Amino acid sequence: MYLTIGKTSVNAPAHIKISDHPSNPAEKLMAMAKSDMEAVNGIILERMKSPVGMIPDLAEHLVAAGGKRLRPLLTIAGGHLCGDVQPAHHKLAAAVEFIHSATLLHDDVIDDSDMRRGRKVANRIWGNSASILVGDFLFARSFNLMVETGSLRALDILSTASSVIAEGEVHQLASLRNVKTTEATYLEVISAKTAALFAAACEVSAVITDIGEAKTDALRAYGQNLGLAFQLVDDALDYGGFEVALGKSVGDDFREGKLTLPVIRAIQSANSEELAFWQRVMSDRKQESTDFERAVSIIRRRGTLESTLELARDYAREARTALDVFDDGDWKKTLMLLADYVVDRIS
Amino acid sequence: MYLTIGKTSVNAPAHIKISDHPSNPAEKLMAMAKSDMEAVNGIILERMKSPVGMIPDLAEHLVAAGGKRLRPLLTIAGGHLCGDVQPAHHKLAAAVEFIHSATLLHDDVIDDSDMRRGRKVANRIWGNSASILVGDFLFARSFNLMVETGSLRALDILSTASSVIAEGEVHQLASLRNVKTTEATYLEVISAKTAALFAAACEVSAVITDIGEAKTDALRAYGQNLGLAFQLVDDALDYGGFEVALGKSVGDDFREGKLTLPVIRAIQSANSEELAFWQRVMSDRKQESTDFERAVSIIRRRGTLESTLELARDYAREARTALDVFDDGDWKKTLMLLADYVVDRIS
Repeated sequence: MYLTIGKTSVNAPAHIKISDHPSNPAEKLMAMAKSDMEAVNGIILERMKSPVGMIPDLAEHLVAAGGKRLRPLLTIAGGHLCGDVQPAHHKLAAAVEFIHSATLLHDDVIDDSDMRRGRKVANRIWGNSASILVGDFLFARSFNLMVETGSLRALDILSTASSVIAEGEVHQLASLRNVKTTEATYLEVISAKTAALFAAACEVSAVITDIGEAKTDALRAYGQNLGLAFQLVDDALDYGGFEVALGKSVGDDFREGKLTLPVIRAIQSANSEELAFWQRVMSDRKQESTDFERAVSIIRRRGTLESTLELARDYAREARTALDVFDDGDWKKTLMLLADYVVDRIS
Repeated sequence: MYLTIGKTSVNAPAHIKISDHPSNPAEKLMAMAKSDMEAVNGIILERMKSPVGMIPDLAEHLVAAGGKRLRPLLTIAGGHLCGDVQPAHHKLAAAVEFIHSATLLHDDVIDDSDMRRGRKVANRIWGNSASILVGDFLFARSFNLMVETGSLRALDILSTASSVIAEGEVHQLASLRNVKTTEATYLEVISAKTAALFAAACEVSAVITDIGEAKTDALRAYGQNLGLAFQLVDDALDYGGFEVALGKSVGDDFREGKLTLPVIRAIQSANSEELAFWQRVMSDRKQESTDFERAVSIIRRRGTLESTLELARDYAREARTALDVFDDGDWKKTLMLLADYVVDRIS
């Protein structure tokens, strides 16, 4: 099959393909949490409202486009795992989705993206200014929702996660086009920009249920490791070494000069010719039409997609192990399967 | 004297000049609150810290440039007026300044500004992306600070104010270049984008002191009306009908096609030639080098700067009256003088 990058296409290799996962655990969780997620959805739609029409229009464009609702689903599933889902879980799940949506709106302005969730990005329709401001609006609304739960601890966890996310995004920005970016820096960045919200989404579910520190820490660790695995796979997917059935375009990170693990590791083992290539396309961002194909071919030769997925698998294992402290049951089992699925969906 | 607009200059009329206010009540309040404001400043500097160097660099550029610190000063002065300033007042004052700073960073990206507080705007140095993200960071940090006060009510007031601010900014964006913008819409916009934070900054001071609903409402009303007066004067200043000793450039609103009260009222009484002018420069944004001077001359002829200041004076009076419920004393007296000063500083 062909993968689209900008206006060019690259031939995807056949050796890694998307699995027909017999039972997609994300979908299974969504089905198990159906009535809760409907309540969450109701809150999301209600709180996007504003007399200023541009706000619901723009917010709906993003939120109605769907997305996986993975983060709020974690808050709900975490509540069930702890044996108790309360209205506060619904509000916090909606708050988590609002924080995520706000960062997406701002990211799309920053990355100068074209598409998101198979649709034109909001800033291409309403302009960058509107996307920045509606992001701010959703972010503020997320705090309104948290306040309504009356849980200062949940507020603490999610406001800290929000500042860590912004910190991670700035860190990523400061590392752009730097071919000397280390694995440690990369892991710090994805830990902050992605895993922090997964971790917080899980942790607040335990805090509301008030299930004790050990299980709260366990849920946080599950979310953190799941988030790391998720981002590693996302970054591997951007080099399209897979038959992608995800409606995701490839090459965005490459085009932006974003140093992700597949490239960082390819640079580590680069010969002088390859190093010159990475410097030209990443640091100098002088990219020609065949350069992405060449990047994919170097990455394939160096096996760094596989090693990136291997690291993702390690984190998925950590995520599963974290849930050991919980009694066996359907929620635990499906959350454990989800950790594997985050990686296996493409291998 | 000459006022700078973009690369052109206009001659300011001599009939309105800045007063050598015998005792500037903003400065007097700052002196009265000196040790509190030092504590607030310490918190601001401490909470701007981050291992990601770009964050403190950019934040310091804005925050260290000073500004009037008027909003946090209101939180502190409000506490004194209520007879009790606690550490929570310091934290909330810092949170208020962070919210304000975050909106300034985002505004400068949106307005494509050049200067702020006599310095080049941050986004011209670090880029739009950094300004968006550091704004997000400061905004998140403001909620961390609020959480530490343990006051859910203060959190509610400031998170609601934050969403109202964003709503007001989107409303303003949606009204850009629309010569049919009404006074009612304009007042809604400035009430949301500016007065909401002044009101919240005052209200939280009473909430922390727990002084009862009547005085809490009074402080909120003081802030709301002060904020309206402040913004009206700011919008008048942009047409530079004053000798400006404020280091403020003029013509920004004009250049952006922002319909503010001096223009809205000038349009209300425009003849057909003037209407064509406003349509060309505002709706079509076809502006020539002498157009700003012409706008100022029309506005002067129509007397709409004076009528804008008159409305500001009404709100200042409302602000003063709101404080009637408090016992007489130095804080009350100086806050009342501040309301007048916000208008009189330029008349």
